[in-house]
Amino acid sequence: MLQINRERFLSDFEAVSQFGATNDGGVSRPALSEPDMAARNWLKERIEAAGLVYSQDTAGNQFGRLIGADDSRVILTGSHLDSVPDGGRFDGALGVLASLEAIRVIKESGNLPPLSLELVNFTDEEGTLLGLMGSRAVVGQIKPSEFENPRGGRSHLISSMDRAGLTEAGVMNAKRDDIAAYLELHIEQGKRLLAGGTDIGAVTALVGIRSYSLHFYGQAAHAGTTPMTERADALWAATEFIQKAKDHIMKHYTPGVVNFGMIEAHPGAFNIVPGEVVLAMEFRHGSDEAMDNMAADLLQLAHEVTNTDNLSLTVENAASIHPAPMSDLVVQAVETACTQLDLGSMRLLSFAGHDAQSIAQVAPAGMLFVPSVDGISHNPAEYTRPDDMVNGANVVLHSLLALFGKLV
Amino acid sequence: MLQINRERFLSDFEAVSQFGATNDGGVSRPALSEPDMAARNWLKERIEAAGLVYSQDTAGNQFGRLIGADDSRVILTGSHLDSVPDGGRFDGALGVLASLEAIRVIKESGNLPPLSLELVNFTDEEGTLLGLMGSRAVVGQIKPSEFENPRGGRSHLISSMDRAGLTEAGVMNAKRDDIAAYLELHIEQGKRLLAGGTDIGAVTALVGIRSYSLHFYGQAAHAGTTPMTERADALWAATEFIQKAKDHIMKHYTPGVVNFGMIEAHPGAFNIVPGEVVLAMEFRHGSDEAMDNMAADLLQLAHEVTNTDNLSLTVENAASIHPAPMSDLVVQAVETACTQLDLGSMRLLSFAGHDAQSIAQVAPAGMLFVPSVDGISHNPAEYTRPDDMVNGANVVLHSLLALFGKLV
Repeated sequence: MLQINRERFLSDFEAVSQFGATNDGGVSRPALSEPDMAARNWLKERIEAAGLVYSQDTAGNQFGRLIGADDSRVILTGSHLDSVPDGGRFDGALGVLASLEAIRVIKESGNLPPLSLELVNFTDEEGTLLGLMGSRAVVGQIKPSEFENPRGGRSHLISSMDRAGLTEAGVMNAKRDDIAAYLELHIEQGKRLLAGGTDIGAVTALVGIRSYSLHFYGQAAHAGTTPMTERADALWAATEFIQKAKDHIMKHYTPGVVNFGMIEAHPGAFNIVPGEVVLAMEFRHGSDEAMDNMAADLLQLAHEVTNTDNLSLTVENAASIHPAPMSDLVVQAVETACTQLDLGSMRLLSFAGHDAQSIAQVAPAGMLFVPSVDGISHNPAEYTRPDDMVNGANVVLHSLLALFGKLV
Repeated sequence: MLQINRERFLSDFEAVSQFGATNDGGVSRPALSEPDMAARNWLKERIEAAGLVYSQDTAGNQFGRLIGADDSRVILTGSHLDSVPDGGRFDGALGVLASLEAIRVIKESGNLPPLSLELVNFTDEEGTLLGLMGSRAVVGQIKPSEFENPRGGRSHLISSMDRAGLTEAGVMNAKRDDIAAYLELHIEQGKRLLAGGTDIGAVTALVGIRSYSLHFYGQAAHAGTTPMTERADALWAATEFIQKAKDHIMKHYTPGVVNFGMIEAHPGAFNIVPGEVVLAMEFRHGSDEAMDNMAADLLQLAHEVTNTDNLSLTVENAASIHPAPMSDLVVQAVETACTQLDLGSMRLLSFAGHDAQSIAQVAPAGMLFVPSVDGISHNPAEYTRPDDMVNGANVVLHSLLALFGKLV
């Protein structure tokens, strides 16, 4: 049975970890920064050294192609080399190098793949420029207006794109329609695999995110002369809601989650009973149906706690991102690979965003997670054990082989 | 049985209500403003017309003295003519005029009081200058540093004091030690009397106020990738505490009250589990013992909800004002007067501050409340019915007579 080359793979991972390396063992390699450009040059050399066809598209995405019997369709596999500022070594880079190693091994096996295989390093997954810039460009989802007020500021965006020779028109023009499937390995950024003693996570969906601003209205009043029985305290209502909502979601919607990240009481003084509370609510789950049910339950609870003469509620929908279900085809390929490799696997949701959610809109896409110690990520202390890295790369290899059978 | 002169009393009340009258039926008569100076001149004339000895001390307090058999001691009775900006007619003024009327009736009865009686109009009860300025000056409690950064600003303080011919040295030098007792009528600024169908409130104490900033600490975390069972959410702890604290105080400490007027979650984003919550807590009750017990119970509850490995609590004491218990002597005089007048009375706490809390530090002091419709105060809609005004003035009259017996 084919196996990845452990020594070569880990050595490549050590090499890439030097680009933007920080003293505390992490990396600071924001998209298209000098360290990221250096890492990209290194990757180009490694792709060419492996005998793959190197290319870069107009969104800055890098590719390494192994041409198959049918070169009109391609299985894309990879992740991203950029990091958050002061991030960890593993987030993104591990997926790129696992896919590189898997493709190398397939090439070295001498068997012609039935369709082409392509390693990908997506631009700006982490969002220091636009966020999922490269993968969204590939599926034609970048809006021209996004360049006006980007997350990291316009001047930072322009200077970064200049450094890589990219233009706005080019980013808008990177759409392709030859993707037969997408597979990405990533660290879990959670503790579920380690807690379960499980080697591999087969991701069934990237969760959707919905957020609301809830306004609880009561009656501001003197905190001395107004007896407690006569108060219409907006904070009492909001806090009752938070407690009930948290219990309800944990009881009925696990692994879905809800968070209350911001709260303000108005007018806001020691001696005034709050007449208004503004509460930020965000929840996540893996399907639109679950999201709709959570929304209905949460808003009903909020209405219940304000269902009196002297309290009221208004709801403002702040933002909504649909869940991205992963393809059964890819999930099954990952599980088949785990069985072949005698590795344990569990299905789970991804609660963070990934390039796979972009590609899932145009092709069967899937992800596998490897354990990350203590669930730490976006932090120099991020760590995945070498054995788990190797297991992950082997699963990528055999998932790609399994996909050949399913896609031909 | 002696009775106040209803027509004269209500006519005086109408007259004083014209000074600083606003179009909506209220008054705007901040301490030592032009309208307040006009009201003070009017009061001086009414005192002299009643044949009482007029005087003003160096803190601007106005007095009208009825000399008794023992002129070395005096029962002080009155309140304040100043109002908050855009306030109501009744807060303060009603007490001054009820005491004026009561002393007039005693003078007219022809009986020499066993000790002297003195009407008082205290300067700046409402705090547009220093707050309880006149009554605190009388008990020697003003600190020189207060003149540096007064509540309403230093230039406003100086121009107001100039208008009345007052000096800082004078205000610091107004202490007196001849007060045998103090009695003040005031509107309730609450709904307890009307709710109970009760004519008169005999105030047993002016509540103390204690305030704390509570800091709940958990662990800030990604609101997606951190399962709810693994969160150390500082807002969950704070909201659980608010709910338990509110229920506990209502169950065990009524009529004492607690308020949570401000709350902040940090770092403060839709997608970050709160790692810290800062909560403003203020509570009030009528005795130091009750305040101490409330503090112990509330802080124990706060420690209980944070009594886990991953939560913690720190407590900052922001401010503390001791309760001012009223004198049994005066409470009983008020109750005796009510019995004689066939009026219903109930004992209650005052949840707002009054000049009586200053005088209570040097002499037996007491207050009586009359009903205020809907509990409204510091608002043009403030209203007390004429019958309740008259009842109150009659209770002042007979309480003073009852005090004669107790103080001689």
